[in-house]
Amino acid sequence: MSAIILDGKAIAKRIQDEVKDAVAKMSREKGVVPGLAAVLVGENPASQMYVKMKRNRCEEVGIESFGYEKPADITQEELEELINELNRDPKVHGILIQLPLPDHIDTDKALQTISLDKDVDGFHPINIGRLAMKGREPEFIPATPYGCMILLQEAERLVQGFKISGSNAVVCGRSNIVGMPMSLLLVKANATVTIVHSRTKNIPEIVGKGDIVIGAMGRAEMIKGEWLKEGAICIDVATVKVDAPEAPKGYIWKGDFEAEAAKKRAAAITPVPGGVGPMTIAILLKNTLHGAELALS
Amino acid sequence: MSAIILDGKAIAKRIQDEVKDAVAKMSREKGVVPGLAAVLVGENPASQMYVKMKRNRCEEVGIESFGYEKPADITQEELEELINELNRDPKVHGILIQLPLPDHIDTDKALQTISLDKDVDGFHPINIGRLAMKGREPEFIPATPYGCMILLQEAERLVQGFKISGSNAVVCGRSNIVGMPMSLLLVKANATVTIVHSRTKNIPEIVGKGDIVIGAMGRAEMIKGEWLKEGAICIDVATVKVDAPEAPKGYIWKGDFEAEAAKKRAAAITPVPGGVGPMTIAILLKNTLHGAELALS
Repeated sequence: MSAIILDGKAIAKRIQDEVKDAVAKMSREKGVVPGLAAVLVGENPASQMYVKMKRNRCEEVGIESFGYEKPADITQEELEELINELNRDPKVHGILIQLPLPDHIDTDKALQTISLDKDVDGFHPINIGRLAMKGREPEFIPATPYGCMILLQEAERLVQGFKISGSNAVVCGRSNIVGMPMSLLLVKANATVTIVHSRTKNIPEIVGKGDIVIGAMGRAEMIKGEWLKEGAICIDVATVKVDAPEAPKGYIWKGDFEAEAAKKRAAAITPVPGGVGPMTIAILLKNTLHGAELALS
Repeated sequence: MSAIILDGKAIAKRIQDEVKDAVAKMSREKGVVPGLAAVLVGENPASQMYVKMKRNRCEEVGIESFGYEKPADITQEELEELINELNRDPKVHGILIQLPLPDHIDTDKALQTISLDKDVDGFHPINIGRLAMKGREPEFIPATPYGCMILLQEAERLVQGFKISGSNAVVCGRSNIVGMPMSLLLVKANATVTIVHSRTKNIPEIVGKGDIVIGAMGRAEMIKGEWLKEGAICIDVATVKVDAPEAPKGYIWKGDFEAEAAKKRAAAITPVPGGVGPMTIAILLKNTLHGAELALS
C-alpha cells in the first residue's frame, strides 16, 4: 500500500479562495470589511514572523489587519485595556493575541478578556469548556485542530470505508492548542479517543490500534511506520527543524511520523511541510470572516 | 484474586467529618457560617429527593442551606435574576442549580450566570475549560469525578504497584457531569485516557487494556467481568434500579459492572450502592466549605 497524500496546501488554498469571495460579497452587499487585530508583545522573532504571515494572508483575501506591537514590559492592565478597546472597536471582528506572552503576564486572564464573539483563536476558557461539553458548541474552534478535522473529512472522501464516527483515534500530545482540543473535537465527532502523552508507557501498542493517528508532540519521527495499523489515517501536526548539512538550506522539516515508513502502511497521510501547517492560517481567516458574520447577525 | 472493596461510604464519612470540624472552626474563629443555596425548578420527584438529601447533609455538618423552589414555568430572566441575587448574597458561598432544568430554559446560559467563586458543582463552562487546559486549575472540581479521584487515590494506597500516573485508564461514558470531566482529571493526573461511548465498536478489547476502568454509562452490568485486565481498578459510577421481585423492596441497585465476576479479576472495585454515590454529596460539602474559604481570602 502507498498512502494517499492529503494535500493541505491545496485545501487551504480552496478555503482561502472561499473566504476571499465571501469577504468581497460582504464588503459589496453589507459595506462591512472583516477586520483582524493582531497583538504582538515583545520581540520574539518566531512570533514576529507568524504575525507577519497572518497579516499578509489577511491582505490577500481582503480582510483588514490591524497590528499592535507592544513592548515586552507591558503591564497586565495595559494589555487588558488594549483588548477591551479592541472588544469595543466595530472595525475589529477577530482578536489574536500571539502566544507565548512574557512570563509576568497572566495569559489565562488576558485571553479571558477577549470578547467571546471576537475570540477567533478559540482559546477563551469558555470556548474550550464548550468544546468539552456535549450539547454545547464553541463560537470558534481553534484553528489547528479545526484544520485537522477538515483533513480527516477529506480522508473520508478519498479512503473507501473510512469514517471518523466509530473509529479509534489516537491523539499523541495533550497541549492546550492542539492535542486537547483535537481530542475533544474527535469525541464530539463520535470517535473513540485515546490521549497519549510523555507519561504513556505503551505508545507503540496504543498507536497500533488507531484508525486515526494524530501526531502533535513535536518530536521528529517519533511515531514509527511499523507501529501503525494497516490503513490508518495519519495527521502530522509537528514541524521540527532538523539539521541536514546536505540540504540546500542546511536543515529540513520533519514531522512526528517516520514519513517514508508510515506511507507504506497508512491509507492516507499529511506531508510535512504542506499538510496541517497551511490549514492553520486558512482557518484563522475563516474564523475572522465568521466573527464579521456574527457582528452582522 | 478477590478484589479489595473501596468503601466509599467510609471515606465519605471521613470527608464529611473533616468538613464538619472545619466549619465549626470557621464559625468560631471567623464568625462565618458556610452557606449553600439550592435552586430547584419544577416538581421532578428525583430532583426533589436529591435536593432534600443535599440540604440534610449540609445541616449535619453545620453548613447553612437555603432552598429556592421555583415553578416549572419560571422564565430565563427570572431564574438568572435569582442567581444574580445569590451571587451578591454574602451568606451564600455555593450555588447549586439542580439539573435537569425544564426544556425552555437555556441551561448553559443559566449555569454561566453563577459567579465562578460560588460554582460548587463546577459546571460553569470556564471551570470545565480550565479542567481541559494544561497549566490551569478550575476553582471547583465537579463532585462525582472528584469523588472518583479520591477513590483511585485510596486504591493507590491499598493496591501494591498501582499508580494513577502512567496507567491506562478507560472511561466508559462521556457525559458532561461524569465521563468528560473524569477523563480530563485523569489526563491531568498523567493517566493515558481512552474515552469509550455508545459509538465505540470494540468495547471489550478496549476495556481489557485498562489498568483503571470507570463505568459511567448507566447500563446495568454492561461491563463483563471477563473483559477486565487482571488486577484492574474498577470505579462504578452507575446506579441503575433493576426489578427484583425476590428482594424486600421489589428492586435492587446495579452498577455498570457485572459485579461478582468483576471482583474475581479486579484488584479493587467500588460497591453499588456505597461506593461513588456517598462521595458525591461529601464533595459538594467540601466544595461549599472551599467557597466560604474563597470569600474569606
